[in-house]
Amino acid sequence: MRERIRHRESRGKVVSAEEAALLFRDGMKVATSGSTMGYPKATFAALAERIKTQGGIKIDLLCAGPLSSEIEDVLVDAGGIRTRIGVVGSEKLRAAVNRGEVRFVEGKGAQMPLQVKRGWFGPVDMVVLEAIGLTSEGNIIPATAVYDSPEWLEVASGVIVEINLNRPMALEGLHDVYQRGADPIPIVGNPLKRIGVPYFSVDPSKIKAIVLSDRSDRPSGEAKPDRMGEAIGEHLLDFFRREIAAGRLSELLPPIELGIGDLAGQVMRKIGSSEFTKFRFQVPVVTDPVLEIVDAGKVDWVSGTALRLSSEAWERFKADLDRYKSCMVLRPVTICNAPEMIQRLGVIAINGCLEMDLQGQVNSSHVLGSKILTGIAGSYDYSRNGLYSIFVGPSTAKGGKISAIVPMVSHVDHTEHDVDILVTEQGLADLRGLDPGERAEMIIGRCAHPDYRGMLSDYLAGAKKESGHIPVALEESSAFHLRLKRFGSMKPS
Amino acid sequence: MRERIRHRESRGKVVSAEEAALLFRDGMKVATSGSTMGYPKATFAALAERIKTQGGIKIDLLCAGPLSSEIEDVLVDAGGIRTRIGVVGSEKLRAAVNRGEVRFVEGKGAQMPLQVKRGWFGPVDMVVLEAIGLTSEGNIIPATAVYDSPEWLEVASGVIVEINLNRPMALEGLHDVYQRGADPIPIVGNPLKRIGVPYFSVDPSKIKAIVLSDRSDRPSGEAKPDRMGEAIGEHLLDFFRREIAAGRLSELLPPIELGIGDLAGQVMRKIGSSEFTKFRFQVPVVTDPVLEIVDAGKVDWVSGTALRLSSEAWERFKADLDRYKSCMVLRPVTICNAPEMIQRLGVIAINGCLEMDLQGQVNSSHVLGSKILTGIAGSYDYSRNGLYSIFVGPSTAKGGKISAIVPMVSHVDHTEHDVDILVTEQGLADLRGLDPGERAEMIIGRCAHPDYRGMLSDYLAGAKKESGHIPVALEESSAFHLRLKRFGSMKPS
Repeated sequence: MRERIRHRESRGKVVSAEEAALLFRDGMKVATSGSTMGYPKATFAALAERIKTQGGIKIDLLCAGPLSSEIEDVLVDAGGIRTRIGVVGSEKLRAAVNRGEVRFVEGKGAQMPLQVKRGWFGPVDMVVLEAIGLTSEGNIIPATAVYDSPEWLEVASGVIVEINLNRPMALEGLHDVYQRGADPIPIVGNPLKRIGVPYFSVDPSKIKAIVLSDRSDRPSGEAKPDRMGEAIGEHLLDFFRREIAAGRLSELLPPIELGIGDLAGQVMRKIGSSEFTKFRFQVPVVTDPVLEIVDAGKVDWVSGTALRLSSEAWERFKADLDRYKSCMVLRPVTICNAPEMIQRLGVIAINGCLEMDLQGQVNSSHVLGSKILTGIAGSYDYSRNGLYSIFVGPSTAKGGKISAIVPMVSHVDHTEHDVDILVTEQGLADLRGLDPGERAEMIIGRCAHPDYRGMLSDYLAGAKKESGHIPVALEESSAFHLRLKRFGSMKPS
Repeated sequence: MRERIRHRESRGKVVSAEEAALLFRDGMKVATSGSTMGYPKATFAALAERIKTQGGIKIDLLCAGPLSSEIEDVLVDAGGIRTRIGVVGSEKLRAAVNRGEVRFVEGKGAQMPLQVKRGWFGPVDMVVLEAIGLTSEGNIIPATAVYDSPEWLEVASGVIVEINLNRPMALEGLHDVYQRGADPIPIVGNPLKRIGVPYFSVDPSKIKAIVLSDRSDRPSGEAKPDRMGEAIGEHLLDFFRREIAAGRLSELLPPIELGIGDLAGQVMRKIGSSEFTKFRFQVPVVTDPVLEIVDAGKVDWVSGTALRLSSEAWERFKADLDRYKSCMVLRPVTICNAPEMIQRLGVIAINGCLEMDLQGQVNSSHVLGSKILTGIAGSYDYSRNGLYSIFVGPSTAKGGKISAIVPMVSHVDHTEHDVDILVTEQGLADLRGLDPGERAEMIIGRCAHPDYRGMLSDYLAGAKKESGHIPVALEESSAFHLRLKRFGSMKPS
């Protein structure tokens, strides 16, 4: 305890998770942070138990990123979430939102914590964070997530710190906590150079409870090999090589941002195993493939907001912590994903999506324009500000019944202005410098699955008959989606 | 001539506009800059004459902002534009683009000149700029526009300088020319403090011709009084007062960005005539109403990229130049509209639009999803990065036959994530913190015209019957537009 809680006055605040759970009231706004690891586990489990037994408590849950099912689903099962603000991370929460049982207000990428600070969502009552300990002044030493923690600590009336004894104290120093003010973010060149402090500043009197926990994260598997990701990675590598040949890139690739999931993981592995070296990763969360490329000795630096590792990768990370720490920094999402950082570093933004259309618009979030999947999260900031904005995904889904290339997406998360390049396993469409008609033709020819090219070309031919700058036929633009709704397939019956 | 061309070696380059026009070849990429004033007049007029006589020349015309009809329409009349890259400023160009006779590639706000610098649009052959003179080192002293000039001068192989003798040399010093690099933009606090130089740096050997001109701009009228703008301005003022009462704003309003046109002008006049003072305007272009509020002694500073004044206002400006200069600075659009500047200054972004939908999505650019009007221009940068992102417009058009509030916009320029507040003459919808169903109800109740509220509510009720996070009925989402196309009105026949 002495080693973990260096701040003597705070030691008396240690309570059980069940006692901490008594601090919550109905209608509270509760913020937390983390990803599929690094989130507080014991307190929310105890809160869910309390709600199940007593009922009568619903909270508004704030976190800019997707959380583990150990928070979201456990609370949903207990009927304990009124509103989720940010992103949807887990299956049961997703279903409850889509049934209309839980309100969901999507966050505006890295701007969401700043908007909360401005009072747009009202006062925040409590923040619950995982940590490895408290400094001698009573500040909080982060575990594996910085993310939106600093903003929550600033605005929340009360703080519950969950000290995870399974996280080694040696994590200290991986973090660089800096709050945006009226000055430019003072990161120039190598982002490993620290600009802030290695802890979350907090008024110790706001700490209402400290919970000691030795729970592990719910085990999450490694990203599985993905055939589509393999092909997409190859198309991207070819593109980089062509840009180098054209003098628009050098052998030292710009920093790369890549999302999460099996497909993105495989894309990253493919890129990591290429002839390129000295990678720089500017990623919202640090995933297994990043670690593998570090292990291969091909990484200059990794800048992120949190770790999101499988159990296996975490064990590897822990066993060789100093080596990983030497090339890695975790910062607040308001810094890492800030437009000025992304633009200044010149990041290649590679993000997955649900569907793409002939205008180059991208839907990342809502199936059939209506059902939330996860949310836009970091793609919001990276696609707008990246040196290149690239969206990737398989050309079809559900065994070919769904074409990811449609005449018009059912929901627009990224406008035609935010999308430079689209990639499917079929090929890569470089939309730069093209007018709308040319874009549509290239997307059909390069990205669409052959089964759907004819239908898409027919649509385009009809749309071009009408006058206008963008070839659009509003009568037919939802036809693919309507067929899917009615007949379970986008193909004509 | 000595006073205007201080660089002795350049004096021999003075030629007639007709001679300068001989420097153009078919297929050239030609960049220029300016707004409805401050654009080069003589050279493009002579080029159009040459094309009319000889034929066989089509150029690609680059400029991030909308240009005067004296460039765009005159060249279109001569059949001299193959591609317009940026924004459409003039009537005949608009029609030619929508007929498919001129290619139009829309620019990505302030990122467009940076993308050209990266080689995304190929080499630029010539840049033609209006100036007031040359420094003794041969650099170019801007007239009334900085805008995208510095980037064009850096990338273009050849330069034609058009010195407008009608522009007083006393304009010198109004400008602050700075190019973005790897460092943060060093503007902190008051943006009047200069960070660059008062001229465009250029390699004098690139200057192929200097044209002396005494042409005036095509006279443009003052913004007319606008009843809708009056009502919208009043709703905005009420909103600011409520934000102050809630402690989210202070009496010193944040810097304000406002677009162009009669409606925006009237909104600005309304705000300017209120109890608020010490205005700070961060505007892409400086318009008549800005000058009027300066005249009223209520402005601390104006930061923009170019002047866009009526002939009357320009005369006033010229007559009292030192006073206006003391509170004003013109910078490159890549600085003025940079995300980091807009975020750091905390700008209230107020932009006009064509249509808004029940999700809070905004169409700024394409009528019926197809016909280009102007383009997104600065709204791209300000709506995404503003402290508040506000879109304004009348609730109906064409004598009530068109509702600006529709179930789903026919083209998305600004996603639901980029829109905080919608305002029509009917009222103001503050969408912050609402979920999609609540947003839709508020937009119908506050912004829609009473004639259309029933139809919109019917649509929403139907959409809510389907399961999902966003109430959407894809079968009906284009119904308003399809009725307009078929029957000339969105109202049921």
